[in-house]
Amino acid sequence: MYADYKTKMQKIADVKYASAVLQWDQETYLPPKGNDFRGQQIATLSEIAHQQFTDEKLGGLLLDLNAKDDLSAAEKRNVQLSLEDYIRNKRLSSDFVRKMSEAVNKSYHAWAQARTENSFATFQQPLHHLIQLKKQEAEMLGFEQHPYNALMNDYDKGLTVTTVDTIFNDLKPQLLVLLDDIKNKTAIDNSFLHQHFDKDNQWKFGMEILKRMGFDFEAGRQDLSIHPFTTNFSSMDVRVTTRIDENDFGNMTWSCIHEGGHALYEQGLPAEQYGLPLSEYCSLSIHESQSRIWENCIGRGLPFWQHNLKLLRTFFPVQLNNITTEQFYKGINSVAPSLIRTEADEITYHFHVMIRYEIEKLLIEGTIDTIDIPAYWNEHYQKYLGITVPDDKRGCLQDIHWSHGSFGYFATYSLGSMYAAQLYAAIERENTSLEKDIADGNNKGVQEWLKTNIYQQGRYFSSEDLCKKATGETLQSKYFIRYATKKYNHIYSQ
Amino acid sequence: MYADYKTKMQKIADVKYASAVLQWDQETYLPPKGNDFRGQQIATLSEIAHQQFTDEKLGGLLLDLNAKDDLSAAEKRNVQLSLEDYIRNKRLSSDFVRKMSEAVNKSYHAWAQARTENSFATFQQPLHHLIQLKKQEAEMLGFEQHPYNALMNDYDKGLTVTTVDTIFNDLKPQLLVLLDDIKNKTAIDNSFLHQHFDKDNQWKFGMEILKRMGFDFEAGRQDLSIHPFTTNFSSMDVRVTTRIDENDFGNMTWSCIHEGGHALYEQGLPAEQYGLPLSEYCSLSIHESQSRIWENCIGRGLPFWQHNLKLLRTFFPVQLNNITTEQFYKGINSVAPSLIRTEADEITYHFHVMIRYEIEKLLIEGTIDTIDIPAYWNEHYQKYLGITVPDDKRGCLQDIHWSHGSFGYFATYSLGSMYAAQLYAAIERENTSLEKDIADGNNKGVQEWLKTNIYQQGRYFSSEDLCKKATGETLQSKYFIRYATKKYNHIYSQ
Repeated sequence: MYADYKTKMQKIADVKYASAVLQWDQETYLPPKGNDFRGQQIATLSEIAHQQFTDEKLGGLLLDLNAKDDLSAAEKRNVQLSLEDYIRNKRLSSDFVRKMSEAVNKSYHAWAQARTENSFATFQQPLHHLIQLKKQEAEMLGFEQHPYNALMNDYDKGLTVTTVDTIFNDLKPQLLVLLDDIKNKTAIDNSFLHQHFDKDNQWKFGMEILKRMGFDFEAGRQDLSIHPFTTNFSSMDVRVTTRIDENDFGNMTWSCIHEGGHALYEQGLPAEQYGLPLSEYCSLSIHESQSRIWENCIGRGLPFWQHNLKLLRTFFPVQLNNITTEQFYKGINSVAPSLIRTEADEITYHFHVMIRYEIEKLLIEGTIDTIDIPAYWNEHYQKYLGITVPDDKRGCLQDIHWSHGSFGYFATYSLGSMYAAQLYAAIERENTSLEKDIADGNNKGVQEWLKTNIYQQGRYFSSEDLCKKATGETLQSKYFIRYATKKYNHIYSQ
Repeated sequence: MYADYKTKMQKIADVKYASAVLQWDQETYLPPKGNDFRGQQIATLSEIAHQQFTDEKLGGLLLDLNAKDDLSAAEKRNVQLSLEDYIRNKRLSSDFVRKMSEAVNKSYHAWAQARTENSFATFQQPLHHLIQLKKQEAEMLGFEQHPYNALMNDYDKGLTVTTVDTIFNDLKPQLLVLLDDIKNKTAIDNSFLHQHFDKDNQWKFGMEILKRMGFDFEAGRQDLSIHPFTTNFSSMDVRVTTRIDENDFGNMTWSCIHEGGHALYEQGLPAEQYGLPLSEYCSLSIHESQSRIWENCIGRGLPFWQHNLKLLRTFFPVQLNNITTEQFYKGINSVAPSLIRTEADEITYHFHVMIRYEIEKLLIEGTIDTIDIPAYWNEHYQKYLGITVPDDKRGCLQDIHWSHGSFGYFATYSLGSMYAAQLYAAIERENTSLEKDIADGNNKGVQEWLKTNIYQQGRYFSSEDLCKKATGETLQSKYFIRYATKKYNHIYSQ
């Protein structure tokens, strides 16, 4: 009976992954005129996967299996999680899922068009329509206290507005203290980042960095896209994308390391559980912890560049031979309020996330409408970061998420950074030579720890439980604050 | 009711095209470890498409629609063709289709492996298994006279062993006369083709040639793969692939023009018929006529190079500035028996096809088994072409088709070349300035004629009827023989 369940789930996974291939292609290689039919094709696959996963026969099988007591712990957990997913999915009709998929396709293209025109107006109506559907979705899924909880649940099961508000209210004043402190220090010169860096050499450097991180190119690849992302079609085929700005070397580098962190997680998930919940990641918060631990704790750390700056200099000798490792380290970590989330430093980053989180919450509860977004956005960038947003492209059009219908996602970006700091502290406790090893180009310590404690666990535990199991505590802001205080005290020491 | 049929058919097309995207990706970008799961994913999509297309509800709908008399001619034809397809598909069980898809995946990888090892032995067993399934398929589909008819029917409806044997028996002696005649002439020097031609410049040249042919890069793209092919996911997204050999400039060039001809056909099919038979090509014979008319009648013609050699010289001045257009034209058309079908001249090409056709016929009727292939192959290359096959890679492992389970396909290659010559003669009759226009870089005459007479007809007519409608006659070998005689008399005139 378990084998029957496994077969059914694998076939559903085949359809979902097929849809993911079509989406990957859409963002990397699809010729423009192919887009309308592609939208239909993806919608049809979503509909089929949904129909299969809400089939009463599967439901009956899951209930029967859930009542059995001769399953292994892993089997039991798979069944339990599938049953939870099944119950959730049953709440959405196939017709609704198709409508959503089509609305997402339309709004994605409206967003791309709006970016070209640098005008939110083009995106506003399709986004409005999408949000009406997301509100319906929240109602259909059901929630306690706040409709936004129903949506966040998709990205981090059990996460609530109350929890996030508490964490953000705890974090915000501490970040403001740090930020105020830095504002009084001499600004760091990071102008070396903005020389001309040739596209091809940047690409080669990024590919080599992925290799050094442990990315398996036999089980994945990198391509170019407008907005970098990671996707996978099994743990044996994990794809990252990047973008290259020839006038900003950092743009590619840390996005590449970031996606590389996500990709290592996907490559490390148990392949033998293909199609079953235990082959899946824990939550998007934990997923983000895996990208942020590489991007920031490691990839913006001094030890990492003690090893990798040599390589970078071979590609860009003219630009970087006169920059010392210490100068480089400080330059890539300078803190300054800025417009683009994905380019923000580790401190101000959280404010970017908090603003989007607030907007989503207000949109879903109906306090504001899409037409209010640019004004709200610009006002809060002024309020928290003290900067003026010059246009929509560098303002509320910068992220792809809303166009994808991904509401409830943003908070996981901040939580991910916080989890990353807490995990990194745990790895350091267990590997006393960690930073020396990284400086020697040996990433085994990090790789093995993450594999054992995070990757191989799949979706067995909730974010909270996984964190507790791996670090001894649930998520605590003190780890991020400690990490940031130590780091920026050093960087802004004179 | 017709709208309901259309919706159902479009959803089936969505699944089939999704599967085609996964296959395209498999041959262009898939990382090696991703292959096993990819095989499963493609098999699952095939199974779903098959289930949907053999659904009794669709059958009932088709029967009802077929009995109606208020449909337009196009609607009527769509329904009629879908009903024929439905009846054919009902003969194969979902289970069988899945088994076939999995066997194909295995044999494709065995073939790739066998090529690496340069040994047919690795491929023999998986191929044997596949052929057993093909025999079963022929039985399930039903046939008159010869089981191979059931398989050829998939590629050119109504084509039989009797017809092909008659055509080949008519063609063969005439070709042998031509070939013998050429053997007595001085061999042509085509050594200029085998200098070093840089990969990147070859790529750029190929892309420009596709543009000049009229390939719409907003509705398609070109990538690299081991074996060049054309695929499409709607007429708005048509993909060609090519391969580049730096020591053989011709390899890329005419494969690129060949696939470009296929691609123009796909891009010219009526987009508004998406998912319905009238959006589909007539037959593989006609498809091949579209690639061969461009590759040979046009792309190996003197007028074409009177215009395009200038461009080619800009990429390869050192290699080609001393070669006159006439020398170039003769060099690219030199006739000599050779090992590789896709690199063969227009005369010997047909023998390559005839040998494979014979082998397939004998395998399917059970006269020989897969273990006999290399010996049979090598013996007949000696017999017809007078050459010794040095190894399997340059012998019976060279084509991808068997590994894909494409039995019944090869004859269409010869028929395609013959149709091409007949169509080209018809275009010339209607466009008296045709060759002058081509020499001026103006391909409008060809493009418009093919669009009107071939592309826009979709699958409305059979190969035979389409040919008759377009040229006034059914397929006649005289057009190919006339074309070849005129061409090679000129080329081998002194």
